[in-house]
Amino acid sequence: MGQYIPPLRDIQFVMHELLDTEGTLKQMPAHADMDVDTINAIVEEAGKFASSIVFPLNQSGDLEGCTLNGTEVTAPKGYKEAYKQYVEAGWASLSCDPEYGGQGLPISLNNALYETLNSASIAWTMYPGLSHGAYDCLHEHGSDELKGLYLPKLVTGEWTGTMCLTEPHCGTDLGLLRSKATPNDDGSYSITGTKIFISSGEHDMAENIIHLVLARLPDAEKGTKGISLFVVPKFIPNADGSLGERNPVFCARLEHKMGIHSNATAEINLDGAKGWLVGQPHKGLQAMFVMMNAARLGVGMQGLGLTEISYQNARTYAKERIQMRALSGAKNPEKEADFIIAHPDVRRMLLTQRAYAEGARAFTYWMALEIDKELSHPDEAVRKAAADNVALLTPIIKAFLTDNAFECTNHGVQVFGGHGFITDNGMEQYVRDARITQIYEGTNGVQALDLLGRKVLGDMGAKLRAFGDIVKAFVEEHGVNPAMQEFVNPLGDIGDKVGKLTMEIGMKAMQNQDEVGAASVPYQRVVGHMVFAYFWARMAKIALEKQDQDDFYKAKLATARFYFAKLLPETAGYIRQARAGVASLNEMQDDWF
Amino acid sequence: MGQYIPPLRDIQFVMHELLDTEGTLKQMPAHADMDVDTINAIVEEAGKFASSIVFPLNQSGDLEGCTLNGTEVTAPKGYKEAYKQYVEAGWASLSCDPEYGGQGLPISLNNALYETLNSASIAWTMYPGLSHGAYDCLHEHGSDELKGLYLPKLVTGEWTGTMCLTEPHCGTDLGLLRSKATPNDDGSYSITGTKIFISSGEHDMAENIIHLVLARLPDAEKGTKGISLFVVPKFIPNADGSLGERNPVFCARLEHKMGIHSNATAEINLDGAKGWLVGQPHKGLQAMFVMMNAARLGVGMQGLGLTEISYQNARTYAKERIQMRALSGAKNPEKEADFIIAHPDVRRMLLTQRAYAEGARAFTYWMALEIDKELSHPDEAVRKAAADNVALLTPIIKAFLTDNAFECTNHGVQVFGGHGFITDNGMEQYVRDARITQIYEGTNGVQALDLLGRKVLGDMGAKLRAFGDIVKAFVEEHGVNPAMQEFVNPLGDIGDKVGKLTMEIGMKAMQNQDEVGAASVPYQRVVGHMVFAYFWARMAKIALEKQDQDDFYKAKLATARFYFAKLLPETAGYIRQARAGVASLNEMQDDWF
Repeated sequence: MGQYIPPLRDIQFVMHELLDTEGTLKQMPAHADMDVDTINAIVEEAGKFASSIVFPLNQSGDLEGCTLNGTEVTAPKGYKEAYKQYVEAGWASLSCDPEYGGQGLPISLNNALYETLNSASIAWTMYPGLSHGAYDCLHEHGSDELKGLYLPKLVTGEWTGTMCLTEPHCGTDLGLLRSKATPNDDGSYSITGTKIFISSGEHDMAENIIHLVLARLPDAEKGTKGISLFVVPKFIPNADGSLGERNPVFCARLEHKMGIHSNATAEINLDGAKGWLVGQPHKGLQAMFVMMNAARLGVGMQGLGLTEISYQNARTYAKERIQMRALSGAKNPEKEADFIIAHPDVRRMLLTQRAYAEGARAFTYWMALEIDKELSHPDEAVRKAAADNVALLTPIIKAFLTDNAFECTNHGVQVFGGHGFITDNGMEQYVRDARITQIYEGTNGVQALDLLGRKVLGDMGAKLRAFGDIVKAFVEEHGVNPAMQEFVNPLGDIGDKVGKLTMEIGMKAMQNQDEVGAASVPYQRVVGHMVFAYFWARMAKIALEKQDQDDFYKAKLATARFYFAKLLPETAGYIRQARAGVASLNEMQDDWF
Repeated sequence: MGQYIPPLRDIQFVMHELLDTEGTLKQMPAHADMDVDTINAIVEEAGKFASSIVFPLNQSGDLEGCTLNGTEVTAPKGYKEAYKQYVEAGWASLSCDPEYGGQGLPISLNNALYETLNSASIAWTMYPGLSHGAYDCLHEHGSDELKGLYLPKLVTGEWTGTMCLTEPHCGTDLGLLRSKATPNDDGSYSITGTKIFISSGEHDMAENIIHLVLARLPDAEKGTKGISLFVVPKFIPNADGSLGERNPVFCARLEHKMGIHSNATAEINLDGAKGWLVGQPHKGLQAMFVMMNAARLGVGMQGLGLTEISYQNARTYAKERIQMRALSGAKNPEKEADFIIAHPDVRRMLLTQRAYAEGARAFTYWMALEIDKELSHPDEAVRKAAADNVALLTPIIKAFLTDNAFECTNHGVQVFGGHGFITDNGMEQYVRDARITQIYEGTNGVQALDLLGRKVLGDMGAKLRAFGDIVKAFVEEHGVNPAMQEFVNPLGDIGDKVGKLTMEIGMKAMQNQDEVGAASVPYQRVVGHMVFAYFWARMAKIALEKQDQDDFYKAKLATARFYFAKLLPETAGYIRQARAGVASLNEMQDDWF
């Protein structure tokens, strides 16, 4: 079943050498007491919990899956016990509001926790993960009464949460949803409808499940402007927080899926279930977006977690398995054959995994710190700039990291050869688990439209230019350093290309909006690489300066060079594809397909 | 569970309009009686068998898997009965030698049969598929006695066959294999060892299973020059062909795998099993290569089959599922939303599937005709030229088509969105099944080394130049036609680029052999695209001429334009990656990983 060693050194490198996490947090009154030692201690404990408690359940949970008896679901063996430990250790409350019992720690720390949990098991981690999303949503949009009733138990993790959006006939297009909410005399609503694909939708790990449900009020207009958000508990809590009557919100079936077998993907029937309005009537989609944006970052972290765990196990295998001699001569002459890490294409796959994992770590931890700024920085201009970066880059985190994770978990299988295809070895589960990350919380195609259509062209490129200015500042600062030119030149180049490509697509889109959809997916990969090239250039700078200190920096520098030599160049193909436009997509008439 | 409609019109287009299958076969005395009507009738019947008998078993077989009781394996429900029908209808004997009861039909027809069978179910088709490989190997290398005893039953399909190569410690590197063969007094050998990953290794679909086993004789030298090939039957046949004693060649376990659940992947223990030498002592690997080359083509056909079936079902879904409005305005205003085929990125995915399927069909049917020439053409120069093309392009068929199939089956899932991840809808099975095609019969990385190291650089580029001359002749013939320039120009361009890239890598490899391994995988994709660009340009030419006849040709032309606009450009990235060389792979020391 392999192994997981939390990459503490690399996390610390990112948090303290690449980013000044401590110094940045200290600017915020809420986090002024953060210091390096505290951060490291918490991350280390998180890694211990993930590797020793969660990771051992990942493969057994995949094989066992969830069990539906009547309308009750049992999670795989050990899941409930591990979750109890999670709650008792206080991990659920890490970054929650102290007013409701949370520890008030920065998002940056919660993010590090989630990296390690996602490497250990994305399916297990989705139980607390969705709860945290429900907490966020209620915290931002719920009335004081709802917050007082629900948040304390969501903060501790005693209750878990879900997001009930999708219906059989609509996923991407929530404007089509049909679930209905009719007002009751007591201020509550009766909600009726069928929701599908509800992750963590029913289970035995917590005493209550708090569903956040989108439905239409009787006077709602059609489309997305007629959708309201409701909180629908499995058990209706009494005023003192004890559990009251069972609400008619039942699991009707569990889906059989390609992966994440141990997370219960439920069809949820609401049969006049009692719910309470969250936020304003007909403004449910906006309220839910809080949760969806957090979820998209969470999915990006799943991508990082899966890339890292697949890398660790492929690397170990490549250093133990002997097969064939290196073309350039025996590397391990004392053995019958060379370790397969001697073969250039095996190295290519391992370095691809490594470069994408480390690039993702730099990017996501930077992003978490931007979110901390957005939420907690005293300077409004800083908050605004951070919010813009978060808005622009959320679809990149979601889509670029999960596309990379699918590629990388497949490299992990390929390094194992036939043994990678065998369930026992664990590598193929990472592929099956990674596959959903490209689909849920908005498919990666939807992310690409969000990036290009809304986030870039929607504000005439302002947010993209702001991020581009950060890149340009780095290029200008380090362009004069000869040792940095191997990194700064391609970074400047990809930055220029993104600018030109964006202009070109923007001009074409004024003639035909379909040009956006025709270019968006390859465009997303090009922008993703610009972001990664920026973070790899920054990491290379540190590694160049410290390479004589220890091999950690030499490895970082080698991985940076690999990134610029072998991965960034794929943009050459994507730019051509993005520029190719819509004509060849539209010549084919629908009935010719 | 979807649907499968054999693409008869497109197969006929390839066989009769793109390729002159009838005319070419008529040059061969063995196939002089072939005509278009006979070819079409056989292909139509093959399609009926595949779609009505095999396809309905694909999903149920995946869910049920194979069952091991003691050492006996039961295939999923219906598999045995379908196989009986296959044998009775004579499909197994289609292209086998009439001397042993075969029908002596060309490989081109067998190839068409296998396209449809692989769309219907690759896991079921591997039972007859491996048998056909065993037939080929015995037919070419067996003594008259062995041929007389085994071939008639392999030809009818009453007995099935396997290839027993892999051992726990060696797959790619067969030089490490340890199974032993010691001579008996009666001319047979006693064989002892453990073989793993034996596809179709044990089952209840046929009364006997003929294992072709690699093992070492007592006096064998180390490495690949000390390996001999043996035929090891499950039941030792009596001279009259009836079954005699049970040979101690037993299934010890079945693997749990990511996909192809319904094909039994067996661990086979040979415990002094009786075997008979096939071919010369110590020349087993060369003899097995006959089977492996056929198997590699077979795996390429699995790639085509899976791409086609995933496309068919994704296309149907995209025309039925409504979700969101097209960005450029409502396409189906009478509906609540547009059919998702209206969205450019959905079209991109569907057209990618279609272009790769149709390109693969053109390429593989051309290749099958080359094999017919190699085997049956009266002119030795024609046979030699065909053999060179087959040798050069076998790794491309195997690797390029299966990499494309993995991409395309994933597009199929993505078109379905969340519903693609759900087992019931059948789309995720195609991904899981496609994944093994990139691994077995030599991983795609091994294919890339075979292509660049052995087939191209190994003969100083002679075979590649010969194929390049075919491409050049087309470019020169049609370069003067203005209507063809949109196809001929990029074809000529990629041909030039392949030539330059090959020269460059060849020069670098003279300094450092690891340059071959560093460039081989992206190089393989570049050459694969040159081949596809050639066949797409040829198809475009026909479609241009006939586009006013019916929409079939308009669709072909549109797909050709899509291929050149959106798929061929990915070579820009791969060329840069191939040129980036080995330096960035080797800077990283093994212990830094």
